[in-house]
Amino acid sequence: MAVSISPLAPKRVADMPEIAGARLATAAAGIKYKGRTDVLLVALDPGTAVAGVFTQSKCASAPVEWCRAKLKGGKARVLVVNSGNANAFTGKTGSDATKFTADLAAKAIGCKPGEVFLASTGVIGEPLDASVFDGVMDGLVAAAQPGRWNDAARAIMTTDTFPKTATATATLGNATVTLAGVAKGAGMIAPDMATMLSFVFTDAPLTAPVLQSLLGRAVENTFNAITVDGDTSTSDTLLAFATGAAASQGAPQIKRPSDPRLKSFRMALECLMADLAEQVARDGEGARKLVEVIVEGAVSKQSARAVALSIANSPLVKTAIAGEDANWGRVVMAVGKAGEPADRDRLSIWFGGIRVAHKGARDPDYDEQEVAAVMKKPEITLKVALGLGRGHHRILTCDLTKEYVAINGDYRS
Amino acid sequence: MAVSISPLAPKRVADMPEIAGARLATAAAGIKYKGRTDVLLVALDPGTAVAGVFTQSKCASAPVEWCRAKLKGGKARVLVVNSGNANAFTGKTGSDATKFTADLAAKAIGCKPGEVFLASTGVIGEPLDASVFDGVMDGLVAAAQPGRWNDAARAIMTTDTFPKTATATATLGNATVTLAGVAKGAGMIAPDMATMLSFVFTDAPLTAPVLQSLLGRAVENTFNAITVDGDTSTSDTLLAFATGAAASQGAPQIKRPSDPRLKSFRMALECLMADLAEQVARDGEGARKLVEVIVEGAVSKQSARAVALSIANSPLVKTAIAGEDANWGRVVMAVGKAGEPADRDRLSIWFGGIRVAHKGARDPDYDEQEVAAVMKKPEITLKVALGLGRGHHRILTCDLTKEYVAINGDYRS
Repeated sequence: MAVSISPLAPKRVADMPEIAGARLATAAAGIKYKGRTDVLLVALDPGTAVAGVFTQSKCASAPVEWCRAKLKGGKARVLVVNSGNANAFTGKTGSDATKFTADLAAKAIGCKPGEVFLASTGVIGEPLDASVFDGVMDGLVAAAQPGRWNDAARAIMTTDTFPKTATATATLGNATVTLAGVAKGAGMIAPDMATMLSFVFTDAPLTAPVLQSLLGRAVENTFNAITVDGDTSTSDTLLAFATGAAASQGAPQIKRPSDPRLKSFRMALECLMADLAEQVARDGEGARKLVEVIVEGAVSKQSARAVALSIANSPLVKTAIAGEDANWGRVVMAVGKAGEPADRDRLSIWFGGIRVAHKGARDPDYDEQEVAAVMKKPEITLKVALGLGRGHHRILTCDLTKEYVAINGDYRS
Repeated sequence: MAVSISPLAPKRVADMPEIAGARLATAAAGIKYKGRTDVLLVALDPGTAVAGVFTQSKCASAPVEWCRAKLKGGKARVLVVNSGNANAFTGKTGSDATKFTADLAAKAIGCKPGEVFLASTGVIGEPLDASVFDGVMDGLVAAAQPGRWNDAARAIMTTDTFPKTATATATLGNATVTLAGVAKGAGMIAPDMATMLSFVFTDAPLTAPVLQSLLGRAVENTFNAITVDGDTSTSDTLLAFATGAAASQGAPQIKRPSDPRLKSFRMALECLMADLAEQVARDGEGARKLVEVIVEGAVSKQSARAVALSIANSPLVKTAIAGEDANWGRVVMAVGKAGEPADRDRLSIWFGGIRVAHKGARDPDYDEQEVAAVMKKPEITLKVALGLGRGHHRILTCDLTKEYVAINGDYRS
């Protein structure tokens, strides 16, 4: 299926830096797609710490189960990712395939299988023939070079229409450390976890528990604050790797999550993850509008989040936005169905800064023409004030278009 | 917007009986639509008992609030329903409109305003000009006649493509009692409550508490077991009226919900409500397939229901079915995201009686061609066995098509 690049794709592509200690290579193993790469290998220097956050699906994929188990060791030497097949719901064949792949990679790199991390994305339920990795593994290890982020981002795409990369720098002690990340995901995107796959790398010298703590906090307002269709993948995987190479430039080794020297890094990580998460929302299947849903005045942050997700996942709200219709009645519906504390007579709603409803009724001053102009824009902010408390939350989503139906009604064929 | 009748519409229209004590009339008040009726009045004989179940939205419409308050009296003399405007999120104007309408109807019938029941369906947030009822009320009361169910069902339609009626009979003591009902609803249909509007009438002599108990039980596997888009209306209303006229044919007055003589009536009521609920699912906006989702082997009925709703509301499952793709991987995804106890290695999935997945992997015996033939049918049963317990539940839904997006992206314009 030929798909053109999402009209919401970022206009500028990040200028991606090298991360010392991380080398990348991609290959075309022919797992499902023809004429494109579908395997990514990232070779990591000894001493690299790893952290991860995974799907909350009760039917997680074999690679997710593999990573969860190996994360306890806290050390990574190699990451192998494939697209085209999710190796999910594949029974014993699936776990055999992960073990086979990890053994291959461990042998090629010269490490223990427990230092190999895996991710697969694509069709669920088809057995993954791991022997395809046999033919490409040694070549990948030999070819691996720093800075190949765009190639990496391309190799892990499925229904994505553009590769997703982001970078940031931070100050750690007196040194500058660098972060680089890739992501893929376009459908089956919903908290928690929101992304399908994302891999973040840094040269900062952080222990695995520190990295895990940072990652767990940063995910809340980034990958866990986007939704395309409310559907949660069996394979969602976010892995972070810290090679520690910046120690040679004087960056201090951080061993406690509460270390005050982490402030700059924490912010850089959250910005990078927010950037990648927004790119996923911008590539929502069939999306023509990026929609920022802001809920404030809720009784708590959790309540604000539930209301925001109810709005962001409502097919009726999403189709109205696709139709450029400021149908705030459907927003009221979505607030009402969330089941959270809400008082009709205190509720106000804004589209693109224009208040359309106020205190339980249509805003008498709102100008339909002015709102119509807002709705024609490719990026729309929808704000709801509940007027009950101080809880607020922000969710990014996209509209629901005929193209979404076309893409998903025709995916396997 | 010209819409053709849903291809899933029932082939046979019910032959509707009269219900003694209930007389119906419709009028074209021009609330929103041109050239069609938009007001329904049902005049009820003195002594009619009433019961109701309503939306669980936190932002319920003014008529829902009116009915909830008046239900305490347990007596009804008249029902007034309009389409084209939901009188929801209309603030004080909205509650004033309900009071004005009730006063008009009470005066025309000669009863107390507390014996008037109201329902409105259509656009949310537009003030309802209740003065339109002034011009039609006396004429409606004068014209009301028994048996006008098809006219009634037509007057309350919004995006429905066909009127929905059903009837049943039951034995009560030595007498035969009759039930008749109408419903409307095509989108914004999700538990609880699932239908937008439904009104059921019987000549059985039941007290209001008995009717309320029967209705509350019957709703669980009928109107609360369908979903079109997972969206819950602000206006969902199910009202039941018992005129008691069958007492003159010897039907006993029933005063206790536990009375064993209710067995036949209970079953008839549930069948009638199941019939109407199925018609709503068959008229799901843009629907081309009726989908029966059966979940069994769950740890409880509640758990089975949560899993069935997760499947039935998944945009990815629904678009796959629209594309005639037996994409059971997405069913696994939907099971996993429900958050209910599930074990991948015990899970089995059937499409139209063909087992496609078994014990955590693709069923090796399944024939893709055979399943493809099943998927081409207009009615598809999707069964999931969790293999954990004895909880089971059934949900009716429909596919998600480009037409759904077209209908809802263009509703207000």
